[in-house]
Amino acid sequence: MSTVYLTRKIEFSASHFYHNPDFTPEENRRVFGKCANQHGHGHNYVLEVTVAGEPDPVTGMVLDLKELKDILQREITERMDHRHLNFEVPELQGQIPTTENISVTIWRLLEPRITKGRLHRVRLYEMPDLFVDCYGDGQ
Amino acid sequence: MSTVYLTRKIEFSASHFYHNPDFTPEENRRVFGKCANQHGHGHNYVLEVTVAGEPDPVTGMVLDLKELKDILQREITERMDHRHLNFEVPELQGQIPTTENISVTIWRLLEPRITKGRLHRVRLYEMPDLFVDCYGDGQ
Amino acid sequence: MSTVYLTRKIEFSASHFYHNPDFTPEENRRVFGKCANQHGHGHNYVLEVTVAGEPDPVTGMVLDLKELKDILQREITERMDHRHLNFEVPELQGQIPTTENISVTIWRLLEPRITKGRLHRVRLYEMPDLFVDCYGDGQ
Amino acid sequence: MSTVYLTRKIEFSASHFYHNPDFTPEENRRVFGKCANQHGHGHNYVLEVTVAGEPDPVTGMVLDLKELKDILQREITERMDHRHLNFEVPELQGQIPTTENISVTIWRLLEPRITKGRLHRVRLYEMPDLFVDCYGDGQ
Amino acid sequence: MSTVYLTRKIEFSASHFYHNPDFTPEENRRVFGKCANQHGHGHNYVLEVTVAGEPDPVTGMVLDLKELKDILQREITERMDHRHLNFEVPELQGQIPTTENISVTIWRLLEPRITKGRLHRVRLYEMPDLFVDCYGDGQ
Amino acid sequence: MSTVYLTRKIEFSASHFYHNPDFTPEENRRVFGKCANQHGHGHNYVLEVTVAGEPDPVTGMVLDLKELKDILQREITERMDHRHLNFEVPELQGQIPTTENISVTIWRLLEPRITKGRLHRVRLYEMPDLFVDCYGDGQ
Repeated sequence: MSTVYLTRKIEFSASHFYHNPDFTPEENRRVFGKCANQHGHGHNYVLEVTVAGEPDPVTGMVLDLKELKDILQREITERMDHRHLNFEVPELQGQIPTTENISVTIWRLLEPRITKGRLHRVRLYEMPDLFVDCYGDGQ
Repeated sequence: MSTVYLTRKIEFSASHFYHNPDFTPEENRRVFGKCANQHGHGHNYVLEVTVAGEPDPVTGMVLDLKELKDILQREITERMDHRHLNFEVPELQGQIPTTENISVTIWRLLEPRITKGRLHRVRLYEMPDLFVDCYGDGQ
Repeated sequence: MSTVYLTRKIEFSASHFYHNPDFTPEENRRVFGKCANQHGHGHNYVLEVTVAGEPDPVTGMVLDLKELKDILQREITERMDHRHLNFEVPELQGQIPTTENISVTIWRLLEPRITKGRLHRVRLYEMPDLFVDCYGDGQ
Repeated sequence: MSTVYLTRKIEFSASHFYHNPDFTPEENRRVFGKCANQHGHGHNYVLEVTVAGEPDPVTGMVLDLKELKDILQREITERMDHRHLNFEVPELQGQIPTTENISVTIWRLLEPRITKGRLHRVRLYEMPDLFVDCYGDGQ
Repeated sequence: MSTVYLTRKIEFSASHFYHNPDFTPEENRRVFGKCANQHGHGHNYVLEVTVAGEPDPVTGMVLDLKELKDILQREITERMDHRHLNFEVPELQGQIPTTENISVTIWRLLEPRITKGRLHRVRLYEMPDLFVDCYGDGQ
Repeated sequence: MSTVYLTRKIEFSASHFYHNPDFTPEENRRVFGKCANQHGHGHNYVLEVTVAGEPDPVTGMVLDLKELKDILQREITERMDHRHLNFEVPELQGQIPTTENISVTIWRLLEPRITKGRLHRVRLYEMPDLFVDCYGDGQ
């Protein structure tokens, strides 16, 4: 049998800014540049979720795509779409909502929900020319 | 001689929400859905600016691309990139910052600045699957 | 006031083949090439629907995007998505389901349903490198 | 010397549906949803084939791209392009033609044909937002 | 009957630089910037060719796509693909090979060859963020 | 702590041709096809640079994106953008400038400059349908 890696892509639109409360205003501006503007700005995030597994001989599928769609809707879209990541996502509280930190948070949200196959990778695009891959906490 | 239409594409990231102060909270939610969330959300806007003109026989160009780049930097990127469109762009004050209204505002900002050739179209993508074309106030 | 043109993009996956019953098998093969294979083949069609109108001063929108989404779901997705265009779409019966003919059929299905603003253009991609624009029957 | 990974992308258009003959009609509809429609539907599949190897010091290439193009034309395009995957591809007989199963079949078709370098990965997109990676039978 | 607009996209890779022999070296550098480097540089040009016409009732097509493919191969690909536009394309001699001038030249090459339907538009991308549309000499 | 992989994408336009001085003209044409044309041709290269590391707890970032931008500007854009790769890039002298060889050269240029995190992968697209991944000399 062969392990294959199935990837599903979704989008969500959200707002954020970068601010470290331990920095002075000058440090925040110097380190974070335009991203420090506390009015916030936003992105069309693109999320690719990859699940590894063997195709089920009865269905030919690694996992039920409708079930994956439901998990992504419940765990990601409802939490993050049309939200302000600094204020409205409890799992991101106390963190600077960089693409790095959001991708690790998404991994932690999804990993326990994938029960057919196993979560292999989370890729999060902030812009078409900037993205982060996360393969889990232990790697 | 031939008129040709030259298009330059740029991106900016901004935040917004939809709110009509004459609506009740319920009306705002019903009409604007998720976009009514006053924490704001954001997008990677993609702007295509089209200038019509005849190629100059000396340079082969409709207009100087470096000059167009400077105009777009000064009029659009500095005004709107990493900004909250509801609070930080004076030209949008008193309007709901829909893609429709932003594209008309961008037309009005750019039209007087294009002095070689003439502005033909502004196309603004809010998302890859939603965009608005504006051909000017009079059309 | 300004007329603007709002475009929404959707996708549907469908099957088809090209066959003129008045042709001999040889003629069908010669004229339609690989597309004449009566087992059928398929595409991820991408549909761009453009509506022209003035932004409503109260909402800032040409039309209610949720309403447009419902119209596209009911008229196009339910009729054509995961369908065989030669057998399952009554509006295409008696026609060869080329991109040209499908785009004209989509125009005729959508035009009477757009009651805020007016339908301006239907663009249908069969593949990323082949698409057809239709601006209505009279043009 | 360095191993590098060269990837070539091709497209093919094909038709399929999902049907397990051991299921009742109700089970087929419940498990496979719209994909169970036996009229079939189709996709523009995008295939990325990755070959690992060291650049030849004489040519600077991992393998001859014209040869790779010929292999892909003969093994994939001629077998699958403008075909119905349930009926016309012998290598898929007895399998449900999911993206998972097609990608494993493509691996098995290509792996013995790559004789300069070695096949590293097959990636198959069914749609822009759904794809499967296969790294071979043993992995 | 309906006029529709069919568009086919092709790619070619070519080299060029910008140089006006009536300019001093300093003027060439000032006006053309990096593009003045006489070693040349290159692009993956993307060409969209749009033909307007009524679908033929017998075939459902505006024109025979195989014939269009042959015209584009003969007139554009063989002339311009893997060529240096300053030295190897006679139709561009005496002109600065800007996107504007190349698009007008492509119009002139294709317009007399399209005998079913009529050439409506040539769109030439030099880069994904820069393109030119040409609708013919008289417009 | 989690290792994540951050990828930044840039573009550069350059010219090249393939020529092995030890080959006869006939061998160069046979092995390299159209790419042997010594007038040169060109591409819009797209470069993806991936850096692995743990997000800094103070900034939430693997590395300072402005610093990465500066490194890419200095090491890649200034060396290769609007250049002829056969004549103007000393690091490529004596090599055939295939995508394979250019990607290895880019790895060698960037690897010592990445001092926060470590360079994980260089991906270089010559065309949208052809790209090469390099993970370093030792792999």
